[in-house]
Amino acid sequence: MKASIVVLPGDGIGPEVASAGVAVLRQVAQRFGHEFAFTEHAIGGDAIDRFGDPLPPETREALLAADAVLLGAVGGPKWSDPNASIRPEQGLLAMRKLLGVFANVRPLKLHPRTAALSPLKAERTKGVDLVFIRELTGGIYFGAKTRSDTDATDECRYSVEEIERVLRHAFDLARSRRRKVTSVDKANVLETSRLWRAVATRVAADYPDVELEHQLVDSMAMHLLTRPADYDVIVTENMFGDILTDEASVLAGSLGLSPSASIGGPGAGVYEPIHGSAPDIAGQSLANPLGTILSAAMLLRHSLGLAQEAAVVEAAVDQVLEHANLTRDLGGSATTHAVTRAVLDAFTAK
Amino acid sequence: MKASIVVLPGDGIGPEVASAGVAVLRQVAQRFGHEFAFTEHAIGGDAIDRFGDPLPPETREALLAADAVLLGAVGGPKWSDPNASIRPEQGLLAMRKLLGVFANVRPLKLHPRTAALSPLKAERTKGVDLVFIRELTGGIYFGAKTRSDTDATDECRYSVEEIERVLRHAFDLARSRRRKVTSVDKANVLETSRLWRAVATRVAADYPDVELEHQLVDSMAMHLLTRPADYDVIVTENMFGDILTDEASVLAGSLGLSPSASIGGPGAGVYEPIHGSAPDIAGQSLANPLGTILSAAMLLRHSLGLAQEAAVVEAAVDQVLEHANLTRDLGGSATTHAVTRAVLDAFTAK
Ligand SMILES: CC(C)[C@H](C(=O)O)[C@@H](O)C(=O)O
Ligand SMILES: CC(C)[C@H](C(=O)O)[C@@H](O)C(=O)O
Repeated sequence: MKASIVVLPGDGIGPEVASAGVAVLRQVAQRFGHEFAFTEHAIGGDAIDRFGDPLPPETREALLAADAVLLGAVGGPKWSDPNASIRPEQGLLAMRKLLGVFANVRPLKLHPRTAALSPLKAERTKGVDLVFIRELTGGIYFGAKTRSDTDATDECRYSVEEIERVLRHAFDLARSRRRKVTSVDKANVLETSRLWRAVATRVAADYPDVELEHQLVDSMAMHLLTRPADYDVIVTENMFGDILTDEASVLAGSLGLSPSASIGGPGAGVYEPIHGSAPDIAGQSLANPLGTILSAAMLLRHSLGLAQEAAVVEAAVDQVLEHANLTRDLGGSATTHAVTRAVLDAFTAK
Repeated sequence: MKASIVVLPGDGIGPEVASAGVAVLRQVAQRFGHEFAFTEHAIGGDAIDRFGDPLPPETREALLAADAVLLGAVGGPKWSDPNASIRPEQGLLAMRKLLGVFANVRPLKLHPRTAALSPLKAERTKGVDLVFIRELTGGIYFGAKTRSDTDATDECRYSVEEIERVLRHAFDLARSRRRKVTSVDKANVLETSRLWRAVATRVAADYPDVELEHQLVDSMAMHLLTRPADYDVIVTENMFGDILTDEASVLAGSLGLSPSASIGGPGAGVYEPIHGSAPDIAGQSLANPLGTILSAAMLLRHSLGLAQEAAVVEAAVDQVLEHANLTRDLGGSATTHAVTRAVLDAFTAK
């Protein structure tokens, strides 16, 4: 197949991990006879420096024409003044809105070799295999804001339609897994959460084969630590999802390993590792490329419909996790390049 | 001294743990020659059942006249329909607003005997000794709400004054501790958070001897698990505090052990264990009374200025934690009564 893939290297270690992802996708193309065209575009701090705009028009245009997007990371101390009028994160938020990618998908699974690095005791993380679906284009992130000398406000708004589509996404996903959806809200306090819960209950009626459970966000923050293995698909609104997915990501033992997909829009999905731009180690070939490579696998599966190719990439990563020297964050001493090379080698060996 | 203490037993295990707290306070009064007058009043589900109002006028009146308030727990499945027009939590929220208790204080310390119950590995929780200050009377909890057939909204609003007073509280507390304040916000996205950060920075200038660090809420959710021992005083807004304090409370190994104080208003402070109403074990003398007893110690210290008495209660609890049979949640088989009795005995032994 032919596919046009936009690569957004971004800031810090973004360019290094993005190029690891591209290397793997190139190899997939070659091995399976696909034609992937890659074009690089600016986003975030890099785009501010070069174009004075965290999501320049030229990038927007490319995003709208793409079949899929591979993103490195965005942000860094250089642009981190929250009162600055232009900030790297605005590029991320604008991109999510532009592409309408309302479902941020983050699978969480523990690999035996990295489980040892989890801050949680092994008996707690045993059997963890869950997926977060975070609503990504609504809520307080995108609501009206005001600021005066004495006050500030942020509005959280959700429509039935926004809630329903992300819940259907969660229920559909649960059908291909263990058929359990946990919907997280703060329905004892928030009106948007009461609407969320009502919609969840209504949507659940269309999925009699899937169990729906409601959890309050504060309880969920506890249960993620006390019994993470009890969850299958967890779905929640934008801000709660931001906090809970980051909390959960720690359980895996390494942030460097976790991929994400932002999908659901009419066009391209966005695939990126969940780690940040890590400016302290940028440019030194110390970054773990596996989160990006696993994101590339999600890209193959979700945006290009290439499930077999995705599985081959994931198997190669598994093999590397088992046998290869890993990057520093995983207790190894290998460079970004060496780990990427190990994945490519494991891949051709198949 | 004379003090009038309002007791709000509430729901589920609330009455059992509240009466343990009262027993300890009675003993303090006797031992140190104080006169504490206790009056019980209704709140939450119990108040809904008896008066059709989660915070009846009679309770409000008593609260306004009290020197301090000891609360059990509020809520339960019986009243948990989020769409009901009257809910137990409304009693809590109305009480916080009525008393103006804007600072919710939650110390987190690990006791050697309970540390083993933490889901975190011992090397991570070593040396943890932090205090959360959660803003409690502002933010999205109390903002304007709307609901239509197609939409819902919640407004998060903060004034400079609301932010400043809770931050000063945090800085003052830090001065009596390790002189480090971590202020948590989402300043890369929210306008209220940018105001929060600006006020924090300005207030910090009055405390040159205290270090101020800013953290984004999502990063904080991770750092609490990866390096909890690095924190001293953590201060944040209402909703973030709700989520992060519950996440943090798990680290201690038992929810049943953690006290809280809600203070800062012109009148009485409210003291309560952080665990909920646990209706599944209500009425069976299975509840852990230590969280409430430690809350009573905070009451003595913060509302009555009885630091020595507070220290005696805390020492008695320490002794029980070391030597006594504990409740089920701590791996023991003792009843609520027996553990309370053990505290009273340890206390007189001093
Ligand atoms: C950078 C920031 C705006 C962003 C978010 O909060 O959505 C990030 O934390 C994430 O989770 O992708
Ligand atoms: C019951 C609820 C309204 C309350 C809150 O969120 O403030 C509770 O979770 C708490 O933390 O005291």
